[in-house]
Order: sequence, then C-alpha cells, then structure tokens
Amino acid sequence: MTEADFIAALRTLPLHPGARGLADDAAVLDIGDTTLVLTHDMLVEGTHYLPSQDMADVAFRLVATNLSDLASKGAEPLGVLVGHMLGAGDARFVAGLHEALAAFDTPLLGGDTVAGTGARALGLTAIGRATHRPVPARSGAQVGDGLFVTGTLGAAMLGFEALREEGKGGGGGGDSSAYRRPRPRLAQGRALAPHVTAMMDVSDGLLLDAFRLAEASGVTLAVQSAAAPVAAPARRYDCLTWGDDYELLFTLPASIAKPPVPATPIGRVEPRGFVPLFVDGEPIANRAGLGYDHRG
Amino acid sequence: MTEADFIAALRTLPLHPGARGLADDAAVLDIGDTTLVLTHDMLVEGTHYLPSQDMADVAFRLVATNLSDLASKGAEPLGVLVGHMLGAGDARFVAGLHEALAAFDTPLLGGDTVAGTGARALGLTAIGRATHRPVPARSGAQVGDGLFVTGTLGAAMLGFEALREEGKGGGGGGDSSAYRRPRPRLAQGRALAPHVTAMMDVSDGLLLDAFRLAEASGVTLAVQSAAAPVAAPARRYDCLTWGDDYELLFTLPASIAKPPVPATPIGRVEPRGFVPLFVDGEPIANRAGLGYDHRG
Repeated sequence: MTEADFIAALRTLPLHPGARGLADDAAVLDIGDTTLVLTHDMLVEGTHYLPSQDMADVAFRLVATNLSDLASKGAEPLGVLVGHMLGAGDARFVAGLHEALAAFDTPLLGGDTVAGTGARALGLTAIGRATHRPVPARSGAQVGDGLFVTGTLGAAMLGFEALREEGKGGGGGGDSSAYRRPRPRLAQGRALAPHVTAMMDVSDGLLLDAFRLAEASGVTLAVQSAAAPVAAPARRYDCLTWGDDYELLFTLPASIAKPPVPATPIGRVEPRGFVPLFVDGEPIANRAGLGYDHRG
Repeated sequence: MTEADFIAALRTLPLHPGARGLADDAAVLDIGDTTLVLTHDMLVEGTHYLPSQDMADVAFRLVATNLSDLASKGAEPLGVLVGHMLGAGDARFVAGLHEALAAFDTPLLGGDTVAGTGARALGLTAIGRATHRPVPARSGAQVGDGLFVTGTLGAAMLGFEALREEGKGGGGGGDSSAYRRPRPRLAQGRALAPHVTAMMDVSDGLLLDAFRLAEASGVTLAVQSAAAPVAAPARRYDCLTWGDDYELLFTLPASIAKPPVPATPIGRVEPRGFVPLFVDGEPIANRAGLGYDHRG
C-alpha cells in the first residue's frame, strides 16, 4: 500500500474530532480548559538517516522535528515519549536526547525500549499545550492573505553537504549544524499563533509544503521565488525544494502589514484556480519535484 | 547497550515528575483538574510478532497492549497515535486497527507513516484520562496487603499454541483468540483503582510481573501458585510464566475482604526480606525463568 492509500484507509477509522489529517498534521485534544497538541514522528535507519551518522544528531533531530510540529501550532512542549530500538550508538543517542531536551526545556515522560534486528526505527511522541485557540492549522488560509516564511531556506541543505564532505574525508570544514541540529521555531510559533490564518513547518521543502498548505486550505498560493530568503542564492531552486529547515510557513490577513516576528513575505493567497500553486506565475499542477515527498 | 543500561541512562535525563520508571510504567501528566496517563509501546517484526502473522491481529495487539497499560492505571482511553512502517498486509493492519478501536471505544488521533526496509517496527501511543487519583502504580504495595489477579492465566499461551498448530497445517482447531485478540481489562481497572495499593498488568508472565511489583514496592510477595487460576492445570508453571494474558495483578489492604471485581487471592505482601518473591515458600532471588524478560 502506498502512504497515500494507507492514510486514506486510516481516515475510514473511528477518528477523534481533533485528528487533523492524521499523518499530515498534529492532533488537537481538549482537556478541560487546556488544549493539547500531540505529534508522533518516526525515523528509520537507511530511510531518514544513515547508519554512519552520529546517533546524538539523530536523537536531536527526532526531538527537534516533533517539537517543530508543536511550534507550528503555537504550542509549548510539555514532554516527550521515546520509542527506541536498541543498537549501535545508544550512549550517543541518550547524549543527543539530553542535549535536545535541555535545549528546548522539555522533559522526558516515558516510552518503550525494544530489541530488534535489521534497520532500526526510532519514534517520538511530543505533547504540547496550545497557547492560543483556535490552534493554527494548515487549512485556514483565506483569499487575500499574505504568505510569509521565517528564517533562511537551504541552510540545512548546505549543512547536509558539509556533513557528506566530512564523511568522505574531504575536510573543507563547512558548518553542518543547521542539518544536524535543527532548531524548532517554538517562540516564533507562539508569537504568530494569535495572528495567522494558517501555519505549518517547512520540513520537506518550501514549495512542496506551500503546495500542501494550498491544498489543505482549498486555495491557490502565488509564490515569488526571488523573494524567498535562501542560503545559497546561486542554487535557489535547490534551497526551496530541499527541506529540513524547520522554518514556519504562514498566512496573515492583508490587514496585518508586518508579522510579529522576523519573516519574509513571499507570496499571496488567491482563489483556488485549476492548480494549487503558482511559482513566479507558472502553474504547478502536481507535487513532483517540489520537495522531499513521502518522507513520512 | 542492554535495555537495563539504556533505561538507566534515560533516568539521567531531564525527567517529567510524572515519568514513572520510564519504559517500565505509564507516564502521568496533570493538566488542570485532569490527570492524563500516557503509554508508548512498539512491536518489532521477528521479535514481537512473526512475518507470517495476520497483520490485523498485530494491529489489534498493538492497541490492546497499550490500552492494558491504561487499564492498570484505572484510566479511560481518549485516543491513540499510530507510528506505522509500510509493508505487506497494510490493509489487514488497518482492518485490525479498526476492530480494536471500535471494540475499546477509542478514536484515532493521528500518527506517522514511514517507508522502511527490513524488519518492520510499529509504534502506538495511547492517551487516557485517570478516573481516580492518586493513579495506581506498581510501587504502592504495603506489608499485610493481599495479592490478587483477575481472570485466568495461560489462555494466551494455549491460543499461541493453537495458532502455531494452525500454521503447521495441523488443524486441530484450538481457539487462538486469547492470544490474537487480547482484551485489556479497562472496566476492571477503573473499578479497582480507588481501592488498590498497587496495580499492574500481567504482560510478561505472572511470576515475573509479581517480581517486578515486589521490587518496585520494596516488599516481598509470597505467592501460592496452586491458588492461581490457570487455563491448563497440568502445565501450571507454563501458565504462570508465559505472559500475554493482560490480566490485572494488584494488592488490596487486608481490610478489604473482597475485591470489587472478580479476582482470585494468590498471595500476600510481606516485609522485604532477602529476596523479593517467594513461590510456595521457595525464595526466588532473580528473574531468570520467571517470564518473558526484556520483551520491551
């Protein structure tokens, strides 16, 4: 079964009203006066990371990617549960977990530890508390809104390439930290949550994630690629399709001229036309080539 | 790293005050007036289930084992997040998930779907609401308490053997449902929670889990093996060490003569002596042979 078919099948199950798009988006759970946000992400050896990678970096990414999902909901982390398959580098895994939990002020709540053979799978569930209701979703963009992104895109790509060069013994000394140690935009997400009409994190490439936001909102997004801040201007397309930057992509009503956090206007929300995305005026009919699709 | 070493390392991390023994026990999270109980369990192909098994049964077990952890806390399920690695039998997996969620009146909240190679890993996070505070733990047994267990032990073992015979084409027609479709004792757990001093589910064998309860509580348990209700009296030892029955093991103050749900008295809590467990008067100094250890 493909991922799309599997998720379509899941949508036929008894769903919690807070299950938003299942694997696409974080879940929202009202508990009395508190709204919780819950995410679960898995990393698989050979698919999401290489066996040669430092397991401390892998653990850090596992925490960061889940907390990035909370950031895009304006949620503050309450704790994480870790599902760990034992293997090489376990001590480094614990060290990276420690660094990430300390960096993002998030305690460990529990989890499961299993033995396994073959490729390892690591899972993490993050629980957060929404700081604003309604909780931002990727589905709320309105015609006339402006489209914005925080930070600089492509930094993770350059970091990955520096790491790869290092692995080849090429030296070169590029900084790989943007790839190895992503920083979820938790403070930015909380500041933005009361103002945005839609928000998501950019995990799989700006253009792919913009396509998804447009589809979820039932609108068309018109993106000006030259406006997007990129880490390598000579490789603008790569920077906008590579992903792993964990910046926030969001829409604001036209009445808000300036976002409450540093961010760059990169486009506008238009009525849904034949395609969900225009890049520099060119219609983009499908996801192919827009980013890292079906990474999970 | 061994599982014990890994969990010991996790205990050095920033821990949530509700992290109870990490991989050993469910986490407890206070949200306003509500106390949540959170569990995460993984099943690994080849370790926890066989590739030849019906994936509907695997999905059912994945839900049931996590809900059993909630049952042992007297918690009612609020929802689950599923971490799924795509592979053979995905449609059956969804069918089994559907059956389990419907059977235990628990909605799907979200999750993650990933591609992978080699042995599959499946994870599930269950979130429940405690119906009684303090939330029962395995650590509260008091000297003088009685020790009880619900249901009959060894039924899952007989179910597994029936399934194995079926797989060999041996026919025979034994009922494998107790193994394939475990029923978490949710109603019993809720009824017991206000009364017990300690409670846990019997997942890895009665004797091993009694050993663990004794260690967590800092007491010695004296178990009368002949008192335990078993599905195959001629194989009493097997029934008490095989596990997978997901019954509830609990202690009650001596002042409560009769538990509020059907259960069998099987022993007594004594001051901690040299060993944590006596079976029929014989001291048991270590876990070897008591059950399915380090199953995760």
